[in-house]
Amino acid sequence: MKQEFLNLEIKTNGQKLYELTYKICNWIKENNFNNGIINLSIQHTSASLIIQENADPDVQTDLINYFDKLVPMDDKLYTHTTEGKDDMPAHIKSALTNNQISLSIKNSSLLLGTWQGIYLFEHRINQQNRIVALHYLGD
Amino acid sequence: MKQEFLNLEIKTNGQKLYELTYKICNWIKENNFNNGIINLSIQHTSASLIIQENADPDVQTDLINYFDKLVPMDDKLYTHTTEGKDDMPAHIKSALTNNQISLSIKNSSLLLGTWQGIYLFEHRINQQNRIVALHYLGD
Amino acid sequence: MKQEFLNLEIKTNGQKLYELTYKICNWIKENNFNNGIINLSIQHTSASLIIQENADPDVQTDLINYFDKLVPMDDKLYTHTTEGKDDMPAHIKSALTNNQISLSIKNSSLLLGTWQGIYLFEHRINQQNRIVALHYLGD
Repeated sequence: MKQEFLNLEIKTNGQKLYELTYKICNWIKENNFNNGIINLSIQHTSASLIIQENADPDVQTDLINYFDKLVPMDDKLYTHTTEGKDDMPAHIKSALTNNQISLSIKNSSLLLGTWQGIYLFEHRINQQNRIVALHYLGD
Repeated sequence: MKQEFLNLEIKTNGQKLYELTYKICNWIKENNFNNGIINLSIQHTSASLIIQENADPDVQTDLINYFDKLVPMDDKLYTHTTEGKDDMPAHIKSALTNNQISLSIKNSSLLLGTWQGIYLFEHRINQQNRIVALHYLGD
Repeated sequence: MKQEFLNLEIKTNGQKLYELTYKICNWIKENNFNNGIINLSIQHTSASLIIQENADPDVQTDLINYFDKLVPMDDKLYTHTTEGKDDMPAHIKSALTNNQISLSIKNSSLLLGTWQGIYLFEHRINQQNRIVALHYLGD
């Protein structure tokens, strides 16, 4: 059994989806991972991890807009407001999506569909330095 | 360490939950898996994976109706509309649920509660051919 | 490869977040786990698992209130009502969050951010006995 770890550092600049797929593919190539699992854990509770369509960028726009309506930035709705009007909505959006994803690797390739990409989904407005912990466990 | 892979192919016929539990149990039996993890990854972004109650079918009806109200099929709400009025809502429902689930296997049995079943949750209206990638890693 | 299993039993007393982090850390210490994955599976479909902020308790209050508004306890909305007005909303909240989380362990420590805690999120009103299955797979 082989295990490797890497911290991906991602600078974000507002509420968008930031693609991680090619970074993970590069890590697989550099280490000659064959068959195994890569566990992704975002080290924050105001951004999340998501697998979404990588074809039409309108999907990402609609997704961001939908979540903004579902979880409004309205201080009257929340008691945790000291860190900014986007902070509590960010925690809720994180709860509605995922902090962690396990990816299967077969013959050195991610088991993803043709139209699937892996993204960091940033829920805060201002610039952030995000860390996604990668952990490979396999042969 | 032992690893095995299998693609489950599921034909879906509208917005319903399609049970996968027995298919996964059969795969465990056929391969004599003892202790390990089965990672399930749906290869699409308009259907998802969900663990839900397997007793009263009303739970599934209520679940489907709830998600339909939460994410309306209303073209005015979205810009990504070319693939049908159910497509963008399907991507959002997928983001609100899960693309991936890791199941623990102990003594050749899934570690599930008595009332838990594993389902593919189809969010598209028309017939679809879905693939769920199964990946066993264990002893 | 080493594998261990443990059932955590948690008595809950209403709709709150119940922290599991220290229980998992203790299990790691007792067993000298070094590098590996701990797979957590809640054995119920009316409570869930969530990684959330562990600093300001207001975050948890806001989270609980938000989910209560998003999924109202209103019998007119559901057909599955025989187990109490909180039962179907609990199944839906479970679908919107997670039944399962995989945690990475590196050098005997959980790969979590400073402000992250692991919680059982109880969605039922009355007292419940909950089981979270822990499964370690690593070296």
